[in-house]
Amino acid sequence: MDNALLKQHEPQSVLANADPPAELLHQLQPYDLSEMLREMDEKKRLKWIAALPLTLAAEALEYLEPELQYETLNHLDGNLASMLLKQMSSDMIVDMLLAVHPLQAEKMLKMLPEDYREKINALMRYPEYTAGSLMTVDYVSARAHWTGEQTLRHIRKVGGEAEIISYIYVTGMRGELVGIVSLKEMILAHPQTKLADIAKKDVISVPADMEQEEVAAILSRYGFYALPVVDRQNRLIGIITYDDVVEVIQEEATEDIQKLGGSQPLSEPYFKTSVWSLYRKRIVWLFILFVGGAYTSTVLESYQSTLDKVVSLSFFIPLLIGTGGNTGSQIISTLIRALGTEEVKFRDLFRVIRKELVTGLLLGISLGIIGFFRAELMDVSVAISMVVSLAALFIVLWSSLVSAALPLVLHRLKIDPAVVSGPLISTLVDGTGLIIYMSIAKAVLHL
Amino acid sequence: MDNALLKQHEPQSVLANADPPAELLHQLQPYDLSEMLREMDEKKRLKWIAALPLTLAAEALEYLEPELQYETLNHLDGNLASMLLKQMSSDMIVDMLLAVHPLQAEKMLKMLPEDYREKINALMRYPEYTAGSLMTVDYVSARAHWTGEQTLRHIRKVGGEAEIISYIYVTGMRGELVGIVSLKEMILAHPQTKLADIAKKDVISVPADMEQEEVAAILSRYGFYALPVVDRQNRLIGIITYDDVVEVIQEEATEDIQKLGGSQPLSEPYFKTSVWSLYRKRIVWLFILFVGGAYTSTVLESYQSTLDKVVSLSFFIPLLIGTGGNTGSQIISTLIRALGTEEVKFRDLFRVIRKELVTGLLLGISLGIIGFFRAELMDVSVAISMVVSLAALFIVLWSSLVSAALPLVLHRLKIDPAVVSGPLISTLVDGTGLIIYMSIAKAVLHL
Repeated sequence: MDNALLKQHEPQSVLANADPPAELLHQLQPYDLSEMLREMDEKKRLKWIAALPLTLAAEALEYLEPELQYETLNHLDGNLASMLLKQMSSDMIVDMLLAVHPLQAEKMLKMLPEDYREKINALMRYPEYTAGSLMTVDYVSARAHWTGEQTLRHIRKVGGEAEIISYIYVTGMRGELVGIVSLKEMILAHPQTKLADIAKKDVISVPADMEQEEVAAILSRYGFYALPVVDRQNRLIGIITYDDVVEVIQEEATEDIQKLGGSQPLSEPYFKTSVWSLYRKRIVWLFILFVGGAYTSTVLESYQSTLDKVVSLSFFIPLLIGTGGNTGSQIISTLIRALGTEEVKFRDLFRVIRKELVTGLLLGISLGIIGFFRAELMDVSVAISMVVSLAALFIVLWSSLVSAALPLVLHRLKIDPAVVSGPLISTLVDGTGLIIYMSIAKAVLHL
Repeated sequence: MDNALLKQHEPQSVLANADPPAELLHQLQPYDLSEMLREMDEKKRLKWIAALPLTLAAEALEYLEPELQYETLNHLDGNLASMLLKQMSSDMIVDMLLAVHPLQAEKMLKMLPEDYREKINALMRYPEYTAGSLMTVDYVSARAHWTGEQTLRHIRKVGGEAEIISYIYVTGMRGELVGIVSLKEMILAHPQTKLADIAKKDVISVPADMEQEEVAAILSRYGFYALPVVDRQNRLIGIITYDDVVEVIQEEATEDIQKLGGSQPLSEPYFKTSVWSLYRKRIVWLFILFVGGAYTSTVLESYQSTLDKVVSLSFFIPLLIGTGGNTGSQIISTLIRALGTEEVKFRDLFRVIRKELVTGLLLGISLGIIGFFRAELMDVSVAISMVVSLAALFIVLWSSLVSAALPLVLHRLKIDPAVVSGPLISTLVDGTGLIIYMSIAKAVLHL
């Protein structure tokens, strides 16, 4: 990264000055500034913020944690605090207000003009993880009969408050969304062109209660910069910008990874999650898997006489069932992701099974051969080595079949296939793997 | 999604018309159009494309697979094909040319004007997964002494070819990047304002050889819509837009998930990956884990006399080692993601270990209690139930310690912590879990 100014002003030297160097402040990126503000003591932070241009200060504030945002605004001069708050985007204000104590939120809300306060209050009522919770009300709307020139004048007047001006939303008499004009097209067109002539009337919009995953999928599919959110009457109530969607995509990936590891996803960052909450997220699946996995004991008990006769069979139990679990884990991690990105669908079931069985056959033969020689290295008979080898082959095949079919079937049944974690598939094939192993042993060793 | 036009024109009825309905075509989203084009036979596809406005046709083409793009361009009238190709963004052209046969690429390149052809040729030389491979050369640059009005005129002239106009890149005499002006700020400022007065001079840019993961991290950290790419002399050579970064984020998440499942990540979509290639990606880790896991057999063999005396001890082997693996899998999936998003660092090692050991203690006690009663349900002595219960507790604790430390230590050693997959951690704690189990058994049962 080429960040010459930051290099010139080493953070330490900058931080040593209580007075912010004016030239630096105007040039800094809001994000870099926020990193500096976070490291300062409160007195200095307030002094710096007061010295900054308003828009830059508001943008830098948006990168701080909600609690720190609140503390800062609360201790600033009331007038400045209220101007800063107004300048912040509405989705950031909502995030802050939802994170602090309701009484503190009340106090902040009083700083806003009444009509804006109402908008914020409305935004706060949308449930988490929906389009409504992601949207901002700071957009630019215009009327269909306006010319490009008129619209530009309007943007100059109100655009400072808008989060983005890349799209101009054309609304009708009742506030209903009737079209979208991209700023690019408007600028490329003649200044006297009416918005009605260049607006896309086939608008892609989302309802406020749509799940954030779906919003992210739509925005990234179309490659838009922002998506309009409408109510049931198709009235424009907000927009969702791409940066919020990037965050959603990251969150969803984190969730998938945690589920695949066999845990309920954490709702907070790792260090903010208490031990008790980690425990509760994890014990659910550990308990299910422990109780489910206990059937392996019953399976082995039923083969007690076989094990009594050839105790060395038990030596290979961990290796063989582990291999079944590993094979399954590889397959489900591929398929769950492919289902998530809609690369694989239920109608592909037989294609997937065939593909996984053929791959499983190759893998099973390879591991079967290695298994034979591994067993031969120990003090066991050739017959037992044969049993281990065959068991490895059939366990891999069986695990491939189960792991290929299960995620697709669950997806079909509208159950999130991500419940099939690595641990779950391992547990599922552990017991059945033992049955395969013991049956082969009984057949080959004539027990 | 509210897509009234699509609803009016059911795809079937639209597709039944060989002639594209003009009103529909001008209003459709490029993505939706591309979905329709993909379903058509070639004759109809060519007819539709010829009837579409050029920019819309080019945008829709960009959503098609490289092979289909090539086929379409190759069979269109040469003049139209060349205009369409010029209209496509340069990163898309590069993707297409790299996907088809070199001779076909050569043929396409000949359609482009010479200077543009050189640019494309240069773009094609950047290695995959670097900033250079993601960038497009279709941006708007301007000079510092231009006024807002002048710049707008310039954009009207050249902006049609640009992928975005949200940022205007200010370059110096030698093409070096000296500042960035957001279109928003330029429009909000007085038309006579010089770019030099509103440009951010402390530019965040990336070198062409930066890894795409890092590019994605920078873009999402700052919330930019696009990042400029510069050469060693700080000359602007291209820009990377957020939609490419979203794709990178998705790819990286897919890779992490596949690695976590214990497989080398696939480089192609699932159905494009051959069985042989699936085999090669998977056998590596399966082989390592099989050979590594084989030490469990040696461990058990060394306890042969114990197992001979109390064969029922073997009943609980799969359950206990499975639980160790499950605990580990939960922890590493959380930590690997937290390391990836830089939420956790090596300096947090002891904090992480403490947190995981306390959580592990709670989990171990819970599972120990359940384990005792589970064993009691079977035909074994109370002493054995005690052994199972204690083993569950200590195996969970041990697995927590290993799984908490290992990813952080690897990260510190500059080894991708994602090599610690669920299967790897399971295999690691399988053998040690058996030692814990057997040692407790020998101590409690006085064997």
